[in-house]
Amino acid sequence: MTTGSTHWALAGGHIPAESNGPEPARTSRDVLHLLNTGDTEASVELLIYYADREPMGPYRFKVPARRVKVVRFNDLIDPEAIPLATDYACTLTANLPLVVQYTRLDTSHNPQATESTLAAYPIGG
Amino acid sequence: MTTGSTHWALAGGHIPAESNGPEPARTSRDVLHLLNTGDTEASVELLIYYADREPMGPYRFKVPARRVKVVRFNDLIDPEAIPLATDYACTLTANLPLVVQYTRLDTSHNPQATESTLAAYPIGG
Amino acid sequence: MTTGSTHWALAGGHIPAESNGPEPARTSRDVLHLLNTGDTEASVELLIYYADREPMGPYRFKVPARRVKVVRFNDLIDPEAIPLATDYACTLTANLPLVVQYTRLDTSHNPQATESTLAAYPIGG
Amino acid sequence: MTTGSTHWALAGGHIPAESNGPEPARTSRDVLHLLNTGDTEASVELLIYYADREPMGPYRFKVPARRVKVVRFNDLIDPEAIPLATDYACTLTANLPLVVQYTRLDTSHNPQATESTLAAYPIGG
Repeated sequence: MTTGSTHWALAGGHIPAESNGPEPARTSRDVLHLLNTGDTEASVELLIYYADREPMGPYRFKVPARRVKVVRFNDLIDPEAIPLATDYACTLTANLPLVVQYTRLDTSHNPQATESTLAAYPIGG
Repeated sequence: MTTGSTHWALAGGHIPAESNGPEPARTSRDVLHLLNTGDTEASVELLIYYADREPMGPYRFKVPARRVKVVRFNDLIDPEAIPLATDYACTLTANLPLVVQYTRLDTSHNPQATESTLAAYPIGG
Repeated sequence: MTTGSTHWALAGGHIPAESNGPEPARTSRDVLHLLNTGDTEASVELLIYYADREPMGPYRFKVPARRVKVVRFNDLIDPEAIPLATDYACTLTANLPLVVQYTRLDTSHNPQATESTLAAYPIGG
Repeated sequence: MTTGSTHWALAGGHIPAESNGPEPARTSRDVLHLLNTGDTEASVELLIYYADREPMGPYRFKVPARRVKVVRFNDLIDPEAIPLATDYACTLTANLPLVVQYTRLDTSHNPQATESTLAAYPIGG
């Protein structure tokens, strides 16, 4: 059974510029959690959208068969790093169905850490 | 490929009346994040619903092609500002498909900041 | 245009037993936000499910035409109050389509307030 | 009326390794809330996915008729306990429709407790 969708979108990205506490556990971050329940490695492409310039990408990575993969937006550097403290959005296209969740941890205003999570928006496929 | 939906709704709006910390980063707020992945500027209309009076609007703005737009409900003033500390709901109608996410930051009870986010509810279209 | 769904469910209800801060703004609570975009008053029935006894209800209330209504589970007392610090779930049936969102504010562990929100789960209709 | 779906997935599991405050109320945890609105006991199987090894399971339990059941991932021990501080994902298969919600409480960084909740992702069925 295939599980999930091949197209996802996330409208509310924003990596906080500052962090408090031990790294990397308490580093402020935006995170994608990607589940591939299938028996074939999946190829993923991200496009990053901004408020005031053209989209950037694709950012490419793989999700192995029968594995979860955790990708910090903070760590995406090819073709370029995502600037901190900047609103962005993201579309995800995979060649196989995935389940995608998004989490933000914001430790920039010590001790006012906040965490939020949501399912990314499944477009279909 | 069109991405998203043309009709969205949000039932749980509420802009906190007070804030703590530097503005505008820590101003309590309700926020819409709107992603337009298409090649044409999108026109958006919001209606704001209240508990004890008729709906107000439309509030109108544009989302440029291939851009994300971040709209603070706090900043909507035409036809009138949304009162603080008041329960409201919102429907969104666009002429092109969008992906919409909603975030609230509440810094009114220092140091008890809370953040929450959810996908707005896609009605269809 | 009708907006929303007539059947919703919420699996993770739990009203914290304690609160800190001024009432009612900082009272720990579970809340439903219900939006009726139509021109007719809607009638709603809730059933409350527990882990160790039969469901209780129906709890009945109205959502006026073109209005949002905010219902604290804490305030539901007919046919009986929902016990604090107890896991419960909820199903909602309306005679007209509504949009439903759920929010919890937990101020029981001062100063560790937490807030979370999600769309209730639309069953259909 | 059957309520919900028979297949669900959750991509962003992670049980914090440390806790602060009285147990079990303030123990860091990942939790599933499962609602069975039907008149027949439901049988559930979970599979747990990891980043670097094969999936583990099935973990099996029942959800009684007309009841909500709350399952802490922390308490799943057969066929093996889920390691703390480790990214995991989860798929859920039931023989009857359920409504599933997911909550995380993280009290590991006192006093920076964070809580987040989302609907699990309904796959269909």
